Amino acid sequence: MEALRQVIPTLFQNVQEKCPVIESITNVVTVNDCANIVLASGGSPTMADHPEEVEEIQAGCDGLVLNIGNISPIQQEAMLKAGKVANQYGHPIVLDPVGAGASHMRNEAVKRLLSELQIQAIRGNISEMKAVAQGSSNTRGVDANPFDLVTEKNLDQTVEFAKTLSKEKQSIIAISGAIDIVTDGERAYLIKNGHPMMAKVTGTGCMVTHVVDVFLSANQEHPLEAVVTAIAAYAYSGELAYERTKKENGGTSMFRMYLIDYMSNMTAEYLLGGMKVEER
Amino acid sequence: MEALRQVIPTLFQNVQEKCPVIESITNVVTVNDCANIVLASGGSPTMADHPEEVEEIQAGCDGLVLNIGNISPIQQEAMLKAGKVANQYGHPIVLDPVGAGASHMRNEAVKRLLSELQIQAIRGNISEMKAVAQGSSNTRGVDANPFDLVTEKNLDQTVEFAKTLSKEKQSIIAISGAIDIVTDGERAYLIKNGHPMMAKVTGTGCMVTHVVDVFLSANQEHPLEAVVTAIAAYAYSGELAYERTKKENGGTSMFRMYLIDYMSNMTAEYLLGGMKVEER
Amino acid sequence: MEALRQVIPTLFQNVQEKCPVIESITNVVTVNDCANIVLASGGSPTMADHPEEVEEIQAGCDGLVLNIGNISPIQQEAMLKAGKVANQYGHPIVLDPVGAGASHMRNEAVKRLLSELQIQAIRGNISEMKAVAQGSSNTRGVDANPFDLVTEKNLDQTVEFAKTLSKEKQSIIAISGAIDIVTDGERAYLIKNGHPMMAKVTGTGCMVTHVVDVFLSANQEHPLEAVVTAIAAYAYSGELAYERTKKENGGTSMFRMYLIDYMSNMTAEYLLGGMKVEER
Repeated sequence: MEALRQVIPTLFQNVQEKCPVIESITNVVTVNDCANIVLASGGSPTMADHPEEVEEIQAGCDGLVLNIGNISPIQQEAMLKAGKVANQYGHPIVLDPVGAGASHMRNEAVKRLLSELQIQAIRGNISEMKAVAQGSSNTRGVDANPFDLVTEKNLDQTVEFAKTLSKEKQSIIAISGAIDIVTDGERAYLIKNGHPMMAKVTGTGCMVTHVVDVFLSANQEHPLEAVVTAIAAYAYSGELAYERTKKENGGTSMFRMYLIDYMSNMTAEYLLGGMKVEER
Repeated sequence: MEALRQVIPTLFQNVQEKCPVIESITNVVTVNDCANIVLASGGSPTMADHPEEVEEIQAGCDGLVLNIGNISPIQQEAMLKAGKVANQYGHPIVLDPVGAGASHMRNEAVKRLLSELQIQAIRGNISEMKAVAQGSSNTRGVDANPFDLVTEKNLDQTVEFAKTLSKEKQSIIAISGAIDIVTDGERAYLIKNGHPMMAKVTGTGCMVTHVVDVFLSANQEHPLEAVVTAIAAYAYSGELAYERTKKENGGTSMFRMYLIDYMSNMTAEYLLGGMKVEER
Repeated sequence: MEALRQVIPTLFQNVQEKCPVIESITNVVTVNDCANIVLASGGSPTMADHPEEVEEIQAGCDGLVLNIGNISPIQQEAMLKAGKVANQYGHPIVLDPVGAGASHMRNEAVKRLLSELQIQAIRGNISEMKAVAQGSSNTRGVDANPFDLVTEKNLDQTVEFAKTLSKEKQSIIAISGAIDIVTDGERAYLIKNGHPMMAKVTGTGCMVTHVVDVFLSANQEHPLEAVVTAIAAYAYSGELAYERTKKENGGTSMFRMYLIDYMSNMTAEYLLGGMKVEER
């Protein structure tokens, strides 16, 4: 843990200095929030997603997010093209398997992306991650199935599941929930920041995936720590957003605003004062 | 009216207990707000709209919203596929004929959806509803034509129009405006909540259509009351949002935030204290 | 300058009286913000963009925005169709060459739109405008390249560049940056309002392009003044938004809200009290 805490200031500084340009091929539902959270966390977004231009665009970027929330055959083609360029240049790809398990089309898209590209990190809720592991799941819509939720009870078991999945897919695995789990197959971190109101705003999952890519793209020498820091900073922003929303008698839309606001004002010092991260 | 007031607590409770999963095939302009208002009103949204997966997705949902704001041939195909599954499972479909009357393409889309699917409710502004009735209209853009507006003067006439349309289409009809009209062909309700600033934010119509589907999906035993309650809760949220925005010297964007905020905090008790609904 | 100041009240009044209907064929990332800023600045938006209906839709509109942020072959077809109708009816077209220079596809789209349509105004950042001029650039992502930024040092040179481009393209040229430059080839204005936080929110460029079209559509007798006024009003809103965000300890998302809020409350009197515009 001390090692993680010591590297955090460097991780933030690298983001600030490099201002990584992140290309995101994502869903139309949350694309605006995703672009804004990239800016809020210190990157520069481009949401170019047409197969005809993504290779050229990706060549000028530093990272790539692939989010299957509105996957279509043409978008999948764009993902593969951009992904191959990203792999060639060593730009980190983060995959968000939104709604994996809810349709065959999504399961097939995930399989193909994982087989043809080197994905540095995969982030999703537990139902989606089970679908990534098994190729099927009991996902309804895009929220985690209540029967799948990570609790203190099944925590050890879920950490083991994440480690196994990480080794199998050769990717950092980040499972979002009341407790977030991040692992590179060897080491695992638990992140206990966050607030349940995050589940009452669409795109909170999509957004954190983008923050992860911003931190990864600027910090290739510390990939696991970059992912943990990104998620902790975002989840802590959610906590702070909830406190302020409550104080001002707001609701879910005010909460969304403050979530992005706190992320845009987040610093290493601030995070070190509020993060609840454990090595497991 | 007493009957409506007595059932409202049950309608809210059912939404809370069932947390209906709503699939929405809608326009890209307001899709984010629509997903957020589904969450704010107690549902869980999925905006999956590719023809290849909508049948599978809809099978796992509780309701379906069809919004023609950016209709295309492929989206129309998705609507018909998802709609047939929704009909088969008895999931309520709500249609939002955005901009009907403004192009032949939209008029044809509305006709086809109404002829091939059982639509439980149709919600639009008066210009759109005239286009639904006549297959043409004098709609410019997506806002109601000023010459069409519902006033106290033409209210009786408009209620009759709505009742006739409801019987013809076998759908609950909800006409939005300064005074909202909701009817199942036999009974009609007038909703006098709301605020003109709602017309200064894009998607306020699209959003209420989604709230209607959330309430309908959880309350199939009281469909007319569910629609009236959804619209009244949303319109009352608009009133409260205006009051707070004015107090804080905000503008249209703050108003948008508070509209969603009040909806996310709305309860049966609160609505019963503020709603201005009349049976007509 | 006195001439500009004297015409500003008329420009605002015309917008208010005509409430121009603006069709926008734009990118999915910022489409919602663009519709909301059209409403906030006194117009009525329709984001209809399917080739099958855009001609009919544009016939009923007053202006047209073309934004290439997510350009695709089908969208380009819609732009050309809508654009020809706009030209035929004399509806002003404003072009936003988002990310021009970042891909061949975008460069080709810009070339084709400029060769087949009469574009009344082009608004972009300096990197994009260089790409418009040269057919290529060193754009990375969608933000201006830091090496391109307009400063007091290269201001005269940039004004000359803008004037030449304006004459060549027969369009009013508006270059956004710390100092905005607007010229019709003969006269040039510098706008020194605005705030750097505008670069930390996605779509601030896309939005101002829409404000420009609202003002142009209602003020065809004073096109250059309309463009300058639109940009100054928006930039001044950005300044005010920053002040209020700072006072309330907010971040980039609160800033976005207040930017739209101040635009929705902007008046000629207010603008005349705060604008920093110079003739050059």
